[in-house]
Amino acid sequence: MSKHVDVPEDHPRYESLLTRHRIEAGVDKGITSRQGLIAQGRGEAFDYLLGERTTDSADAAERVAVAHLLLAEHAVLSVNGNVAALAPAETVELAEATGADIEVNLFNRTEERMQAIADHLREHGAREVKGLTADARISGLSHERGKVDADGIYDADVVLVPLEDGDRAEALAEMGKTELVVDLNPGSRSARAAAVPIVDNIVRALPNMTKHAQELAQEDEATLRELVEGFDAQAALDEAEREIRTGTFE
Amino acid sequence: MSKHVDVPEDHPRYESLLTRHRIEAGVDKGITSRQGLIAQGRGEAFDYLLGERTTDSADAAERVAVAHLLLAEHAVLSVNGNVAALAPAETVELAEATGADIEVNLFNRTEERMQAIADHLREHGAREVKGLTADARISGLSHERGKVDADGIYDADVVLVPLEDGDRAEALAEMGKTELVVDLNPGSRSARAAAVPIVDNIVRALPNMTKHAQELAQEDEATLRELVEGFDAQAALDEAEREIRTGTFE
Repeated sequence: MSKHVDVPEDHPRYESLLTRHRIEAGVDKGITSRQGLIAQGRGEAFDYLLGERTTDSADAAERVAVAHLLLAEHAVLSVNGNVAALAPAETVELAEATGADIEVNLFNRTEERMQAIADHLREHGAREVKGLTADARISGLSHERGKVDADGIYDADVVLVPLEDGDRAEALAEMGKTELVVDLNPGSRSARAAAVPIVDNIVRALPNMTKHAQELAQEDEATLRELVEGFDAQAALDEAEREIRTGTFE
Repeated sequence: MSKHVDVPEDHPRYESLLTRHRIEAGVDKGITSRQGLIAQGRGEAFDYLLGERTTDSADAAERVAVAHLLLAEHAVLSVNGNVAALAPAETVELAEATGADIEVNLFNRTEERMQAIADHLREHGAREVKGLTADARISGLSHERGKVDADGIYDADVVLVPLEDGDRAEALAEMGKTELVVDLNPGSRSARAAAVPIVDNIVRALPNMTKHAQELAQEDEATLRELVEGFDAQAALDEAEREIRTGTFE
């Protein structure tokens, strides 16, 4: 059903059309699930209300999230089907800029989808993709949904979980991990479970985080710690909610 | 991927789970498209912000829409893939309560989907399903997207178009038809093109309209005309937007 389309960069809906194209291509490749398509639609609606832009408060949260990634003993970027479909190269670039691992982690885990996603990430430059070993479990989740790699998410102190489901986001937070969540719904359980909730579209958030990483790589540890300690998650959620409520319906 | 599940009616997320189940079953039957799944997600987000309830203003709009259907020379309920998947019996019941025709009308028209949807509606009690003849066109739309039946939408004076795309909603309005739109986004072009915009989930809106039809069937024409003339579409859109902005993020 999907067609390979070239969208001119100056088209007023360039980003939105590109996103739609990538998610459709993800279905063709066995990466995006039905639930992923529905989730994409939910995200589109919230993004529409946000004005399809990175707000100042999201930009600040992205900078703080990067400080966490740079300070981490072991940072992991968790990738699901929609993240892989929408922003594969952007994920790889952020991992390289922050020294984080990449681990595939699916709500509806099948070996075929795991493999398709790992292959897709490698095609976009990923060197190592974790998640296929699945030799450890997140406590508090059913067997399939709790599977992670012992030397990946299980071992990590800081985890970026874009577009994560609420149960798993809460379970990861309960394991004591510093959780960085990208989610366009500031009321979602994932966003609320996060140490750093980022209310933004991952297509914009990840490249912006890479840019922050390149800048913050020059800073010393004290500066990064100051950034992290000055962050107020509840204030960020409140601000995102305010932006959504006061955006124009146009 | 979809499973046939029995959802207990007292489950707090009964309606939402049932909706999700129906849309998944729609994919299995070739009724729901990829675009339909994404659209479903957008609707879920707006419905979440509305509090997943029929607001007083939506209820009033539904009553007025029914008055239009009852007053019509020739009313048609336009059905696309998501409407057929989500509310097939509810569509048939509303058609019977108002004397309206049912016509299948798809954004991505293929003979297979047209047939699958017509069959699905017949399985849910529809006697006649229009849309397969396609011997007339809505002006201002590309060939495939403009196809309608000469004795259906083309001939109708009042058309209910739930979950319609903006281009077609505007083209129908320009043909001088009285357009009744069900759309959860009060800012959509469809909602704005409507004589009566109904900002509600069709799973709730259609049965509520049938209930209104049973009551209004007792009323005389003057009462129905009074209802229709007292309606302010812009005020209904403004009220829906206000509800979305002031709902709780819970």
